[in-house]
Amino acid sequence: MLSPIDRTRPGALRAFRDPRSVAVVGASDNPAKWGYWIAQGALRGAHRRDVWLVNRSADQVQGHPAHPSMSALPKTPELVVLCVPAAHVDAVVEDALERGVRAFLAITSGVTDCSRIRERLASAGARLVGPNSLGLFDADTDLQLAWGHFEAGEIGIVSQSGQLGSEIANLAARAGLGVSRFVSVGNQLDVRAKEVLEDLIDHDSTKIVALYLESFDGGRDLVRTVRRLREAGKHTLVLATGASEGSKRLAASHTGSMTSAIDVVDAACRAAGAVRVRTPTELVEVARFLSVAELPAGARVAVVSDSGGQGGVAADVAGGLGLDTPAFSPQLQRVLADLLPAGASVANPIDLAGAGEADLMTYAVICERLAASGEVDAVLLSGYLGCYGEDTPALAGQELAVVDRLALLARNTHVPLVVHTMSAASAALTRMWEHGIPTFPAVESALRALARARHLSAHPGRDLERPVFRSLEVRPGYWAARDLLDRMGVPVPPGARVNTIGEARAAAEVLRAPFVLKAGWLTHKSEHDGVVLGLRSADELADAFARMHRRLGDGEYVVEEQDERSDVVELLVGARRDRDFGPLVTVGSGGTEAELWRDVRTEIAPVDRETAGAMVDALHSRPLLAGWRGRPGVDVPALVDVIVAASAAVTADPVLAELEINPVRVSPAGALAVDALAITDDGETDR
Amino acid sequence: MLSPIDRTRPGALRAFRDPRSVAVVGASDNPAKWGYWIAQGALRGAHRRDVWLVNRSADQVQGHPAHPSMSALPKTPELVVLCVPAAHVDAVVEDALERGVRAFLAITSGVTDCSRIRERLASAGARLVGPNSLGLFDADTDLQLAWGHFEAGEIGIVSQSGQLGSEIANLAARAGLGVSRFVSVGNQLDVRAKEVLEDLIDHDSTKIVALYLESFDGGRDLVRTVRRLREAGKHTLVLATGASEGSKRLAASHTGSMTSAIDVVDAACRAAGAVRVRTPTELVEVARFLSVAELPAGARVAVVSDSGGQGGVAADVAGGLGLDTPAFSPQLQRVLADLLPAGASVANPIDLAGAGEADLMTYAVICERLAASGEVDAVLLSGYLGCYGEDTPALAGQELAVVDRLALLARNTHVPLVVHTMSAASAALTRMWEHGIPTFPAVESALRALARARHLSAHPGRDLERPVFRSLEVRPGYWAARDLLDRMGVPVPPGARVNTIGEARAAAEVLRAPFVLKAGWLTHKSEHDGVVLGLRSADELADAFARMHRRLGDGEYVVEEQDERSDVVELLVGARRDRDFGPLVTVGSGGTEAELWRDVRTEIAPVDRETAGAMVDALHSRPLLAGWRGRPGVDVPALVDVIVAASAAVTADPVLAELEINPVRVSPAGALAVDALAITDDGETDR
Repeated sequence: MLSPIDRTRPGALRAFRDPRSVAVVGASDNPAKWGYWIAQGALRGAHRRDVWLVNRSADQVQGHPAHPSMSALPKTPELVVLCVPAAHVDAVVEDALERGVRAFLAITSGVTDCSRIRERLASAGARLVGPNSLGLFDADTDLQLAWGHFEAGEIGIVSQSGQLGSEIANLAARAGLGVSRFVSVGNQLDVRAKEVLEDLIDHDSTKIVALYLESFDGGRDLVRTVRRLREAGKHTLVLATGASEGSKRLAASHTGSMTSAIDVVDAACRAAGAVRVRTPTELVEVARFLSVAELPAGARVAVVSDSGGQGGVAADVAGGLGLDTPAFSPQLQRVLADLLPAGASVANPIDLAGAGEADLMTYAVICERLAASGEVDAVLLSGYLGCYGEDTPALAGQELAVVDRLALLARNTHVPLVVHTMSAASAALTRMWEHGIPTFPAVESALRALARARHLSAHPGRDLERPVFRSLEVRPGYWAARDLLDRMGVPVPPGARVNTIGEARAAAEVLRAPFVLKAGWLTHKSEHDGVVLGLRSADELADAFARMHRRLGDGEYVVEEQDERSDVVELLVGARRDRDFGPLVTVGSGGTEAELWRDVRTEIAPVDRETAGAMVDALHSRPLLAGWRGRPGVDVPALVDVIVAASAAVTADPVLAELEINPVRVSPAGALAVDALAITDDGETDR
Repeated sequence: MLSPIDRTRPGALRAFRDPRSVAVVGASDNPAKWGYWIAQGALRGAHRRDVWLVNRSADQVQGHPAHPSMSALPKTPELVVLCVPAAHVDAVVEDALERGVRAFLAITSGVTDCSRIRERLASAGARLVGPNSLGLFDADTDLQLAWGHFEAGEIGIVSQSGQLGSEIANLAARAGLGVSRFVSVGNQLDVRAKEVLEDLIDHDSTKIVALYLESFDGGRDLVRTVRRLREAGKHTLVLATGASEGSKRLAASHTGSMTSAIDVVDAACRAAGAVRVRTPTELVEVARFLSVAELPAGARVAVVSDSGGQGGVAADVAGGLGLDTPAFSPQLQRVLADLLPAGASVANPIDLAGAGEADLMTYAVICERLAASGEVDAVLLSGYLGCYGEDTPALAGQELAVVDRLALLARNTHVPLVVHTMSAASAALTRMWEHGIPTFPAVESALRALARARHLSAHPGRDLERPVFRSLEVRPGYWAARDLLDRMGVPVPPGARVNTIGEARAAAEVLRAPFVLKAGWLTHKSEHDGVVLGLRSADELADAFARMHRRLGDGEYVVEEQDERSDVVELLVGARRDRDFGPLVTVGSGGTEAELWRDVRTEIAPVDRETAGAMVDALHSRPLLAGWRGRPGVDVPALVDVIVAASAAVTADPVLAELEINPVRVSPAGALAVDALAITDDGETDR
């Protein structure tokens, strides 16, 4: 009997990446069955480990001796692969545990009684990957226990959907990339994606991680793990669904899980220092870039083309991806103009205007000047380079010399060079790739890869320290919410709590008109006509109180000074607790049409002032804050304070389920929270 | 001497697609020169036409006899190709015209004195394609006078950038498509894209037109020509630049031309029944779809996958492209559930959940049910189909049988089927393609092609009848603009023209308070404080008049009743005359933040009520009009009337350069134009 696996120990998953022996239960001769492919793959590692095939009825499988049952094996296998029908899983696991097996890979799908198996594994100190796994692959250890074909390389694939993982591996192979490790985690009955990712942190062969998840429970820990991968120099490319009603419906039906809101997944990626991609093809494009090139330090791209048409298309595509193609300085334009024929475009994009044909080395010289200029963070070369030698063999040598010179550039500067070429395959292309210059057959692929790489450099990840919890003593009602904001340091208008018409008149004595009267105990004050604005005197306030009291009865009313500052922009700041990722904070454009424009930015809480400032800068309505149509700019630092405070509050006190400050009125003179709602874990506090 | 070419006659460009004889001037033995490639290509047609090579110094070129000059040729060539340096073009054209040549293809770039050549050609009745052309290709006539390699097929390429056209041809060949005709129009010194497109209308071999233009002068005629191509059953895919500052800068520097605003190009495509694509790769993806499949009648797509992950990714990508993946009706879900294992997702996307592996025919059966359901306009199959026979040869026959059955579906229904497959190439894929089922290696390619095809079915093109011009007698000032609106049938508030304080008081007698006072002769009234709102009485109006008159002096003031209706949404309606495309009409979300959200829709004017309604429906802020947060919906037909009227006005009277009605206040009770500005061709009328 093998010793129990200690789940907390590093290397706990060793049996799933370099087992000393493997038994394939359900090994088969029928190529339409999983047991055929898993057995065939397992046998490829027979020079390195014992491989036993188990089949109830056959003496031989694929020309190798087969064993009728687990108990018939000469020794206890370190890893057992289950390729048996779902109905047999229980019994096979039971047999194997008895025999002392401590690691299982369950290919079988349709397993229903998961909790029973989970208990049995836990009590035996055993681990299981799957069920419904497409399998495991590890290039270093010649472990292939998966359907499909894998080229060895540097992408570690961790996928909740086996087939999507397999598509990534296929596309990677077509793009000249390979796989270091492949783990199809399947239904995650026991071993979860997070552990598999942790296991990749020290895995030298893995340089890039491809992660597909359908559900993100335990998302906050996942963020920390992906952050650690980044710190270990490995970029994680995240494929997730949930951007459409269709994919949400499918996930609910498929795994019974809720997808996370896609903007929250994006926030998690920013916090983790990862980047989300939309499709396997896009993932592999980005991986191709990352496998050889450095991240660009910024978003400024020089576009160099030997065709005006291609340069224009490239500039438009770059713009659509959020990359800049800034006009060059007059000095740089003069330098470039000296190298190019009269009339060549030198402002960005650059059109070589025949200079490349006339002297191939022009390609390299222009790129060198651009890389050295300090005016751009990356150079895109788009067009014919790569085809010269193909079309005109006499030019092949010259073209390779250009590539060699470009390679120096890629090696010696921190300005990545990316190439879109009309050639499908040529000696020049091969040479570029060998030299660390990523090439792409479509200009949008080159630029998309660059844009995602730029996202990675802009978001290196943030510390999500485990917070020090403290109670904020959140109590029900608007008066308590005002008090909470006050304690958080968020300014609220002067106000008073009143229960009677007399108290309302008294409040009018100490507060400045105009007044606002609110039925503070109602969650949805406005919808119940529980807010009256613009009360200009004690009498008007008293009248309004009388009318509201007749309608709504006794309760904790609040009188406030109405905010009458000019040049105000209304925003909303919210903080809430996400099922998967925990505390979140949001800022958005406010007003009655806020929902229409959906101009919001969410981050994982807590955020510091820098991240909160970046949230504000990411709003489409950001220009309103800087002064719009002649109005003065408003106090953005004060708004940033509100965001930071809201994010700190929701992080500190787990009882605070949600805090919505809407609107926050920001003027040149500061930010003021003029309405707010706090909801606690046990329901809305002020209902 | 050949007879002059009559430019107005159909077939005027015959010499450029099926010349009886060709002379290549500047034919060369040096494969780094254009004259090498053009000569080599020309000789391929030598079985069909006389091909003469002209070289000043060599007796032989590429093993064929060469002639020292035009005059040494045995006969007058029908088409002369110029591969000579720019400095020699003038003399060669002169010689050739003397010899009687009437058709030229100018490969040469850097030709400067265009107007002189244009005159000489016109007076001789001769035509010229180029200069700076990459050449001509026609598959039917074995005419290849271009650099590069062309596969014969059904795409007609007309490009202002030779290399971009060449990239399209290359990518098409890789996608299994080919080219029927290729015309690199270059600098369009004489023959323009529009004529080349007209020449494609009757060209049977051309089924799809790929058009790249940098400038769209004469755009309105171009729209009519592309519309005629559509009526002849040929779809035009338009590649254009100008979506970014970079591409605008490049076009200005490159050809000295201004790009058209990209939203106007999109409007032109809708009017022409064409679709804009962003890159050559995207163009070829769409062409691959169109070359075999029907247009989908609507935007509803069924997603069928054998992987939940892939189905989810597909649904998200579809949503991002504006396609719907609607949930199926309960009845249809029951039908599908009967065909699939318990727990399979049947709502859309469909996850086959192993049913495909268990019985391959399930793929076809499910697609058949979906196509027959009436609930979707297209079916996307995404995943493993296409790989079965490759991975498991025993399944190859079954897989081909599935493909044959799917082919019946493609043939017998009007619901196109599009396939994303993990296989790079297989017998099943080949069979699909032969059967008219478009396959793609990336799901986003499949869905993008489908989305563009849906754009084509949604926009079959509109008649842009040449309008009956009539004068609207546009005069300067706001009072005249109100009068113009009134004559157009657009409601304006009751008002009066006043020059003195006495007239202002008199106006207050007949109009209802509150009043608005405007300095009607100012173009930018608000910026000069030339508008006062909310004047509640004759006295307030008189005071305001006195103050404004002190500041601004004598002029044509206007008093109006202020619009006090509730539940109003403010929009802007504009009409203007575009340099390239002529009259345009625009509707947009109004208010002070309109510029921020840029929520506008533009169409080529005139528009009918249906198109105007579609413009309103395309606004992101459309929900505001339908009733927002409990407000009643507003009178959209009245808004549509304003759009139609503005579009008719700008079309009818060429003197009206621009009409801006901002805001149009639309309430449940109708639309009211409360401010307007009319600008005539000779400047702003009311400055």
